[in-house]
Amino acid sequence: MTLILSNEDIEKVLEMDSLVPVLEEAYIELVEGRGGNRRRSDIVTPTTLRDDGLYALKSMDGVIPKLGVGAIRLNSDILTFPTNGNEMRRVKVPAAPNNRYVGLVLLFSTHNGEPLMICPDGVMQRMRVGATNGIAAKHLALAEADTLAVLGSGWQAGAAVLAHAAVRNLSDVRVYSPNPKNRKDFALEMSEALNIDVRVCTSGEEACKGAHMVACATNAVMPVFAKEWLEPGMHIGTVRPGATEVEKAAWPEIEIFVLLDHDDNAEMIYTHGVLVGEDKVGSYGVEHDDWHNSLPSLPQIINGDREGRTDDTQCSCFLNNLGMGYQFAATGYVVYQKAKELGLGTELPTDMFTETVHP
Amino acid sequence: MTLILSNEDIEKVLEMDSLVPVLEEAYIELVEGRGGNRRRSDIVTPTTLRDDGLYALKSMDGVIPKLGVGAIRLNSDILTFPTNGNEMRRVKVPAAPNNRYVGLVLLFSTHNGEPLMICPDGVMQRMRVGATNGIAAKHLALAEADTLAVLGSGWQAGAAVLAHAAVRNLSDVRVYSPNPKNRKDFALEMSEALNIDVRVCTSGEEACKGAHMVACATNAVMPVFAKEWLEPGMHIGTVRPGATEVEKAAWPEIEIFVLLDHDDNAEMIYTHGVLVGEDKVGSYGVEHDDWHNSLPSLPQIINGDREGRTDDTQCSCFLNNLGMGYQFAATGYVVYQKAKELGLGTELPTDMFTETVHP
Repeated sequence: MTLILSNEDIEKVLEMDSLVPVLEEAYIELVEGRGGNRRRSDIVTPTTLRDDGLYALKSMDGVIPKLGVGAIRLNSDILTFPTNGNEMRRVKVPAAPNNRYVGLVLLFSTHNGEPLMICPDGVMQRMRVGATNGIAAKHLALAEADTLAVLGSGWQAGAAVLAHAAVRNLSDVRVYSPNPKNRKDFALEMSEALNIDVRVCTSGEEACKGAHMVACATNAVMPVFAKEWLEPGMHIGTVRPGATEVEKAAWPEIEIFVLLDHDDNAEMIYTHGVLVGEDKVGSYGVEHDDWHNSLPSLPQIINGDREGRTDDTQCSCFLNNLGMGYQFAATGYVVYQKAKELGLGTELPTDMFTETVHP
Repeated sequence: MTLILSNEDIEKVLEMDSLVPVLEEAYIELVEGRGGNRRRSDIVTPTTLRDDGLYALKSMDGVIPKLGVGAIRLNSDILTFPTNGNEMRRVKVPAAPNNRYVGLVLLFSTHNGEPLMICPDGVMQRMRVGATNGIAAKHLALAEADTLAVLGSGWQAGAAVLAHAAVRNLSDVRVYSPNPKNRKDFALEMSEALNIDVRVCTSGEEACKGAHMVACATNAVMPVFAKEWLEPGMHIGTVRPGATEVEKAAWPEIEIFVLLDHDDNAEMIYTHGVLVGEDKVGSYGVEHDDWHNSLPSLPQIINGDREGRTDDTQCSCFLNNLGMGYQFAATGYVVYQKAKELGLGTELPTDMFTETVHP
């Protein structure tokens, strides 16, 4: 049978504590060359829905033989680009029937090829980003780090808190987000989840003061972390490609930059012009021609192929990316195992998604 | 509702006469830059099923705004490579439950993004190859061509006959395939389908003698068409990437080569070494450095951007390819329209494949 899950099912079974070690192992498989990732692609065309919109078909694939799974993650989106003054945002329109978005993960067995699971990508998307930031903090933050500042109060912010709690024993969590109600609600929710008193702050500076770890988790296109907030030994995680959340002036002060993946980060960082053209960024001495490969990737750090932090005063920053099909294979593996165990979801005959014809 | 179809459903609705004009229109959209194709990718890893096998996750995407659809075609295969003397074949193992293959097409609306249809790829695969060869014959064969030789008696051979019948008024069809029973059965089946007397031949040479059009439609890795069989004005279609079916000695005698798609054909032709390294191939005067772009693509020929046949004595050859997601979008469009009209298949709630979460 092929398992069909909803986001509600996935929320019940996908826990940070089980995802983090699986994803970490998957990254080792990737850097060792035993796992495979096919980079994201986008085909973008006009849509008949509205003149100011576009249609986008996005897909990314990954296979992790050690876990016995491969996955395709796809999105069939209607995009709009509303402007507010000089700022432009990229907004997906829930245009499918019942005002819904279209994002799917298809999970396959590398043992016999069968389609194991078909499910929406939304909750998995949130969790794979959060878990990856948690893994980065595990390997880059100070060993004794127990203080986390969260910039943002949305969905990614929640995943970031849970992920950092999965890799460090948090005793002090502070949250800042521009909307007072949002940050208060978020602090309450996280206080319950972590069973500690999450503190509401009225500025990013207040939240970051004395924090060992900072999780940038907003939709902001403009920077949300200022150079002045850097402190010795601080680790910063980002969720937006190109790490536009950290203001450019701060970059030369950060000794350790780690990419998720060389192939996947290259274009975005280049595009944003964050690193290119600087004489020197951090202690890697990045030059225009070799800036990219000179930075280590998270899988390299996990695997011990490259060095991360070498002393307690260095600042580190993890650069997130466009998303990898590979991450959805690992996350799908965790979801599938647990959902089967609990008997969640709807089972459809596998024959519905297979064939007798040699394709 | 999202429509789930089987290969049996698709066989009922997918007819060459309706597919050929839609696919032809789609190729024009592609060459005019209004359609988009994401080239095939393969991630290949070990499988736990057997030591002599591999797991392969293959995918390809395409979007045709004019038809209002986008498609992802994927295969989750167990591959083996049995040898017979010096020959190695690439064989898919039907390892999924009930001894089935895993190949899917997901069709989406460019209007609102919704998943319109999920179905197996097998029948569509056969028909998109056949229809494309038919379109090539329409534009490259002699206007008065009414004689077709078919080399092969399998599934692709049947599609080739139907496709040529859709673009030319066939009065004489001959079939050769090494197995006497297979070629006889095939001739009977095609005689019924076309309502003419399809002739069984005991050699490829006999089948091709005096034929205006030749359809190579076999699994053979070795050439099946010999240089000596070329006749003035003959058009040859192929179904294997790199056109290995036509022996290399024949290539310099063929004035007109047409690729399906520059991006998609490049690697395979290069790999097979069919064109590269020759001083001259046909009337295009192909040199090592520019051999590739010097050849026209089928969409360019259809659209009148490049010239095909310029006189009745030239021989022409259409080079097939790896497969394009784009072709599955066009074919899926035809299948979906007709299946909806006839009420075929199983409808599942679209909510099952969409979400309220912003992914």
